[in-house]
Amino acid sequence: MSDIKIVPAGTVTSPIGFSAGGVFAGIKTPGEGKLDIGIVYSDRPCDTAGTFSQNSVVSPSVTVTRGLVESGRTIRAVIANSGCANCAVGEYGLKDAQEMAAIAADKLGINPDEVAVGSTGVIGVELPMALIRDHVPQITLKEEGGDEFATAILTTDTRTKHIAATFKVGGSSVTIGGVSKGSGMIHPNMATMLAFITTDAEIENTFMKQTLREVVQLTFNQIDVDGDQSTNDTVLLMANGAAGNPTISGGDEASEEFRAALYAVARHLAKEIARDGEGARTLMEVTVEGAESHEDARKAARSIASSLLVKTAVYGRDPNWGRIMMALGKSEIKLEEPKVRVFINDIQIVAEGRAIAYNIQSVVSALGQGEVRIRVSLDVGEGRGTAWGCDLTEEYVVFNSAYTT
Amino acid sequence: MSDIKIVPAGTVTSPIGFSAGGVFAGIKTPGEGKLDIGIVYSDRPCDTAGTFSQNSVVSPSVTVTRGLVESGRTIRAVIANSGCANCAVGEYGLKDAQEMAAIAADKLGINPDEVAVGSTGVIGVELPMALIRDHVPQITLKEEGGDEFATAILTTDTRTKHIAATFKVGGSSVTIGGVSKGSGMIHPNMATMLAFITTDAEIENTFMKQTLREVVQLTFNQIDVDGDQSTNDTVLLMANGAAGNPTISGGDEASEEFRAALYAVARHLAKEIARDGEGARTLMEVTVEGAESHEDARKAARSIASSLLVKTAVYGRDPNWGRIMMALGKSEIKLEEPKVRVFINDIQIVAEGRAIAYNIQSVVSALGQGEVRIRVSLDVGEGRGTAWGCDLTEEYVVFNSAYTT
Repeated sequence: MSDIKIVPAGTVTSPIGFSAGGVFAGIKTPGEGKLDIGIVYSDRPCDTAGTFSQNSVVSPSVTVTRGLVESGRTIRAVIANSGCANCAVGEYGLKDAQEMAAIAADKLGINPDEVAVGSTGVIGVELPMALIRDHVPQITLKEEGGDEFATAILTTDTRTKHIAATFKVGGSSVTIGGVSKGSGMIHPNMATMLAFITTDAEIENTFMKQTLREVVQLTFNQIDVDGDQSTNDTVLLMANGAAGNPTISGGDEASEEFRAALYAVARHLAKEIARDGEGARTLMEVTVEGAESHEDARKAARSIASSLLVKTAVYGRDPNWGRIMMALGKSEIKLEEPKVRVFINDIQIVAEGRAIAYNIQSVVSALGQGEVRIRVSLDVGEGRGTAWGCDLTEEYVVFNSAYTT
Repeated sequence: MSDIKIVPAGTVTSPIGFSAGGVFAGIKTPGEGKLDIGIVYSDRPCDTAGTFSQNSVVSPSVTVTRGLVESGRTIRAVIANSGCANCAVGEYGLKDAQEMAAIAADKLGINPDEVAVGSTGVIGVELPMALIRDHVPQITLKEEGGDEFATAILTTDTRTKHIAATFKVGGSSVTIGGVSKGSGMIHPNMATMLAFITTDAEIENTFMKQTLREVVQLTFNQIDVDGDQSTNDTVLLMANGAAGNPTISGGDEASEEFRAALYAVARHLAKEIARDGEGARTLMEVTVEGAESHEDARKAARSIASSLLVKTAVYGRDPNWGRIMMALGKSEIKLEEPKVRVFINDIQIVAEGRAIAYNIQSVVSALGQGEVRIRVSLDVGEGRGTAWGCDLTEEYVVFNSAYTT
């Protein structure tokens, strides 16, 4: 996969034919540089794939977009707002999501059923449709508008998250771009955030849907901030075929390149969400290897990355490996305790299931570097998996105890 | 069940024939009034029942006690220490647990296989057997020693937890007493704490085991402090038959009284664990009613009680009902959003799945009273269940980021 290149300052408008923009409509409280509603637009129809929240309570914005993806029809745009989840608001939720699509369609001169919808923010508050009606027409779509769109979907995030990757298929350059937002309510199993991914690939839709599902499983479903699962989670992939490449449909090198590029984009966006978790100071990357299956490995990695006692230990720079063993055991995967090895940033701290002599100061120092790698070797099979999380700090508590009041 | 009486200052030595005591051996760091190893002793053999951690990594102290319970043999005593979990210490763990039982047996003049073992504290540190050998002989067993034993098993708990309940069977008084400790690593599904329950009931063992399982399901498995599951969780019930009652064996009024008394004892001990969660200021009691099944109701109640976003909202006195809806949906039980009603301390804040006008100040005030009742009505069936948790405060983070270093 060495032929995949990361596009400098790449974003959702890096693939051919996509433009984007955002505006401040007043859905969020005002602040410098704040935007709260944005559009991504394709100059030609896009095939879609998507994965959505598994929460039983979902936003009608998700309902609309999931319906479009399931219909198999092409779409041309997505409109997304921050500041309001459009969730648990009764019958108005669906009407408002549909009107939001219609407002965008009006502006763009396309049909309302060619517009996907995304919403994120406080649950239980109705969308301020008057503000949306007034401000959406003011959005200016630009080829360099990806950053504006990325800004427009932020809630408690401290920075935008985007990336693009490109590779060659035959004589054509194919590009995949993506933006995401996260911060709170981040937990495995789809997909406690918004992520919009665009590509100019000409790609067969069944293969694209299958590949997205597999990639989401390894990336967005492997991150955790606080164990809570949002009502609005959406990963939406739009492919407009503008690259003019020979159709990618699985089973060849081009398909592997596509998968690898999509994985690179999704992993970056997922890791950035974990890194920017509410109050977080340290990104945790937890890899479990030698498990009986990949699924076991992923499950154990998630269990460690989401353990509050591990998260607080990382924050306290405390090489408390006993908590790693507890979280590993909690996942109920197959393990043989006397075989377990644990490494922090490649420093081995556990052998044969128990602590060995190690330089505590070098581990403490490793835990203070903004990114920590925890590696657990089980030696009972060939399964391997990675999960990402962040430390738990007082700021998380302060922040979330004062979010709406 | 009106014939069940709570025994004033009741504890594990309230039933006939039990005595207890504790000593400070130096396993924990010294401090005023600290004890760290204790014994509960019965003057005659006890039938047992128990439930244990489902973590794949368990302390050999659990292994020893689970083995005794599964063997069906009678026991005479339990020895338990705090300050050291005796877990993830390699082959020494089992040897040390067995020697701990032998040291207690020596002191008591009974067989080592008549002694159950419990341990709690830091994982990955070996039991200081020399200290245990030296100090266990100094323990003085007393009929009023229940409080000493309750003190000896505390770790980060701020207070002892015990209770006893009594009822009549024929002409005999039957008593059930219990102590517990908890604080961190508290999560549903057995049973992130130690609880020792004694009774002088003459009771058929199969019925007792079945009843304990059912009661634990409704009590200790319905509490959550931080979603983590300990390696050492134990609920041990010892019955010595000293009350001389007609044997309780199920299917009659006496059996129902026993079940109700055991439930009262277990619920009290479980609630006290949730109330005394690390850093907690507020006990949350979450009841879900009108679910499709009792199991659904219990699951949804646990999901709400364990949500970090609900826990921080309670700490911030923030009636953020959207988070309750999110946590409810996350549990993936059957619900119809337009039917959901939510009450905080009987003040209705959600009707038909959306917020209604309520006096915010009265809800904020309810959230600041040390105990809050959240009630969710689903109106899709007859299922009902309760879970207990506590708020999440900065103190939890501060405490757990500095536990071992």
